[in-house]
Amino acid sequence: MTKDGKMRLGLSMRYLGYHVAAWRHPDVPADGALSFEYFLSTARKAEAAHLDMVFFADGLGIRANDNPKGSLARDMRNAELEPITLLAALGATTSNIGLVATASTTYNEPFHIARKYASIDHISGGRAGWNVVTSWSDEEAQNFNRNENLAYEDRYERADEFVDVVKSLWRSWEDDAFVRDKESGLFYHEDKLHVPDHKGKHFQVRGPLNSARTPQGEPIIVQAGASEAGRELAARCADVVYSNSHDLKHAQDYYGDLKARLAKYGREPEELLIMPGITPFVGKTRQEAQDRFDQLQELIHPLSGLASLYNALGDLSGYPLDGPVPDIGGQKLRSIASNLLEMARTEKLSIRQLYQRVASTFWVRLAIGTASDIVDEMEEWFKNDGADGFNFCPAILPGGMEDISDLLIPELRRRGLFRDRYEGRTLRENLGLKPSIFKLA
Amino acid sequence: MTKDGKMRLGLSMRYLGYHVAAWRHPDVPADGALSFEYFLSTARKAEAAHLDMVFFADGLGIRANDNPKGSLARDMRNAELEPITLLAALGATTSNIGLVATASTTYNEPFHIARKYASIDHISGGRAGWNVVTSWSDEEAQNFNRNENLAYEDRYERADEFVDVVKSLWRSWEDDAFVRDKESGLFYHEDKLHVPDHKGKHFQVRGPLNSARTPQGEPIIVQAGASEAGRELAARCADVVYSNSHDLKHAQDYYGDLKARLAKYGREPEELLIMPGITPFVGKTRQEAQDRFDQLQELIHPLSGLASLYNALGDLSGYPLDGPVPDIGGQKLRSIASNLLEMARTEKLSIRQLYQRVASTFWVRLAIGTASDIVDEMEEWFKNDGADGFNFCPAILPGGMEDISDLLIPELRRRGLFRDRYEGRTLRENLGLKPSIFKLA
Ligand SMILES: Cc1cc2nc3c(=O)[nH]c(=O)nc-3n(C[C@H](O)[C@H](O)[C@H](O)COP(=O)(O)O)c2cc1C
Ligand SMILES: Cc1cc2nc3c(=O)[nH]c(=O)nc-3n(C[C@H](O)[C@H](O)[C@H](O)COP(=O)(O)O)c2cc1C
Repeated sequence: MTKDGKMRLGLSMRYLGYHVAAWRHPDVPADGALSFEYFLSTARKAEAAHLDMVFFADGLGIRANDNPKGSLARDMRNAELEPITLLAALGATTSNIGLVATASTTYNEPFHIARKYASIDHISGGRAGWNVVTSWSDEEAQNFNRNENLAYEDRYERADEFVDVVKSLWRSWEDDAFVRDKESGLFYHEDKLHVPDHKGKHFQVRGPLNSARTPQGEPIIVQAGASEAGRELAARCADVVYSNSHDLKHAQDYYGDLKARLAKYGREPEELLIMPGITPFVGKTRQEAQDRFDQLQELIHPLSGLASLYNALGDLSGYPLDGPVPDIGGQKLRSIASNLLEMARTEKLSIRQLYQRVASTFWVRLAIGTASDIVDEMEEWFKNDGADGFNFCPAILPGGMEDISDLLIPELRRRGLFRDRYEGRTLRENLGLKPSIFKLA
Repeated sequence: MTKDGKMRLGLSMRYLGYHVAAWRHPDVPADGALSFEYFLSTARKAEAAHLDMVFFADGLGIRANDNPKGSLARDMRNAELEPITLLAALGATTSNIGLVATASTTYNEPFHIARKYASIDHISGGRAGWNVVTSWSDEEAQNFNRNENLAYEDRYERADEFVDVVKSLWRSWEDDAFVRDKESGLFYHEDKLHVPDHKGKHFQVRGPLNSARTPQGEPIIVQAGASEAGRELAARCADVVYSNSHDLKHAQDYYGDLKARLAKYGREPEELLIMPGITPFVGKTRQEAQDRFDQLQELIHPLSGLASLYNALGDLSGYPLDGPVPDIGGQKLRSIASNLLEMARTEKLSIRQLYQRVASTFWVRLAIGTASDIVDEMEEWFKNDGADGFNFCPAILPGGMEDISDLLIPELRRRGLFRDRYEGRTLRENLGLKPSIFKLA
């Protein structure tokens, strides 16, 4: 729970929503992922609901491989706007909502990232955030002069240094360095410039950044690491963590673990906000919610469904969809395979039923029910050390955002769990984080 | 001259204008280079005048070194918005004007550049352009893990391959690849996807780009190379060249040379538009124009003036500003040094008078006079194989743009040399270039 007792809420938008069949839903514009208007109108809905931020996940290329053959051509994850340019454009066309985009430390340079996010912070009047990821697929590596992704340790070692360089670039100038005195001709105070001159294992970056301190001081850092190195990076540098927990127990473990790591970096527990993802299917009745979910599940193309099982179970395209799940052996992800096979066996699931489980939400926690059901669950997590708020990952957009505005937000407000106006001007202020000040002596 | 007899006109914006003392001018907001509103309102003025495009030059860091000591603190070129994010934000807030930003092939990766410019083209509805540069300063190299810039040959070899990779990524999908058929579940036609799978000396990039063809087909390519390799790159790949000529003879030589190179790449002369830079000081009378120029010249801080002479003539800060220009020897740029010294000798220039010549316009061609004087010159170049149009580089902004709108554009229109409405929807259409179509069979 946060100190002020209010949840922090984000809206995660990617492609046309988090359900693999989102694009086939009758209310969804199938070409939306390339339309600025699509994202702008959805972001404005989130802003009207006073959400803290919109969030754009990212991958540097198409990560799905075409297995089984023909599945890629049924996949919407092929063409989309690029998140940094999208963020900048939203910065100029929205007024209050925070704007977070993902950028990889493995396939970028710190000077570009420091500069672009600082620029977006200026453009948006203090609403920019950077979601730090290390990238995980070989498909991304292959767009950047490599055959496969960097090894896990190297990725996080590079990420650690990368974030430090970015922060030192953001601290090139003190808050009041630029005087711009027309009379005397002095543009800045020389003793308020601090050239980073970084020389490390992965990077050599002199600086300074050719930008002043930003309206937020520095953009917000978001992170989503789950592993040991990922958690340490978050504890050391992040303002917000987007996590992924499927039950309260897991959420509490993660929350407790991460908050406990803060002290060694001289940080207070409230300096890092933990926001698990949630995909709500909300209806005026439970039946309506379930119907909405079922409608989408029916729209999963069999090839997309089989693709979601491929990495664990191999190519099942030769087997009847409504027959039992065969164990054809030889898979790479043996432990996931045996879990899935066991689940199919005990619950007597057909291939179709199994892929409907797996393909539905890109693995985010599902919540199906009335507003009161879903808010009960959110409140329980929030009040019992499982979350400081949530990152909504609607199955379809803009519809999913409308349901949040119309059904969930009023219920959250009724219980005093969410704001009814923006408290501050910047994302940092709205999140309730300490100001970022850089002024020596 | 263009085929339709109309000039193409661009507005180049950088910092607060092209004069080194722009920020000290009473009408200029000294903090404008970090203000999105500043660039937006100026871009809208350019759009109201129906200019083809706004253009953002760029350097990846602060290129000036602090010589003589104290000069950097008098320099406005220290903090600015980043051009790609600025372009995206302008794409969402303007409607018709073309948007061109500079990106270096030496310190970027082709996948990022292909993706960001494609995204801006989508956001802006077909108005994006990429100014391809290879970067020239060691200060930029030092922000990207190097001590000094790449050698000239390596830079251009890398640039050639870089542009090819970007273009092949832009041709990952045919124009009509995405069908998004909700009924059948087919998102794209498999035979209209073309995976670049590039393996070259400098880059290995598999692709495809995770973006569809853009409203322009592909963004416009701008280039400003002056050397042999720069001219070849322009002849092979560019749609527009921003050149820099100080007299008609030089402009004609450059124009003739570049147009003649097109045939060997199977291109027609009108497929490459050549637009020299021009910094106009326009007044209702010649005296008014001259006064405007003199006013700015007076505002050059002596340390900024001396900095503009430093690379050629060394540190002259110990000498009287209104005394003769000494030859203190030992400079790196010996040929420029002897030219400057000879000029100072023959014209009996003081140090102050010499730096006023050098510092005034970042080397762009100056035109001081009435609208009729300046348009006479532009018309002469345009009609005599010196230019297809011009790239205005106003000394101060927004004032310089207002003068263009109020004084130069009406005179150009009176002579039938410039449009009074946008002919097309995209930058490519307004420039009168061939559509970019990618549809096999
Ligand atoms: C909510 C959430 C969002 C994420 N977004 C991205 C993303 O946009 N791009 C990406 O490459 N990885 C993303 N990841 C992956 C994480 O950055 C991280 O790699 C993953 O959680 C595994 O943790 P680890 O890297 O510590 O092993 C996301 C993870 C979560 C839980
Ligand atoms: C009008 C104009 C604009 C330019 N803009 C940039 C720029 O924004 N960034 C940059 O690094 N170089 C810029 N340049 C430099 C050119 O890209 C090029 O390096 C220079 O003209 C020298 O030519 P060369 O590289 O063929 O030797 C510009 C040059 C001109 C003439």
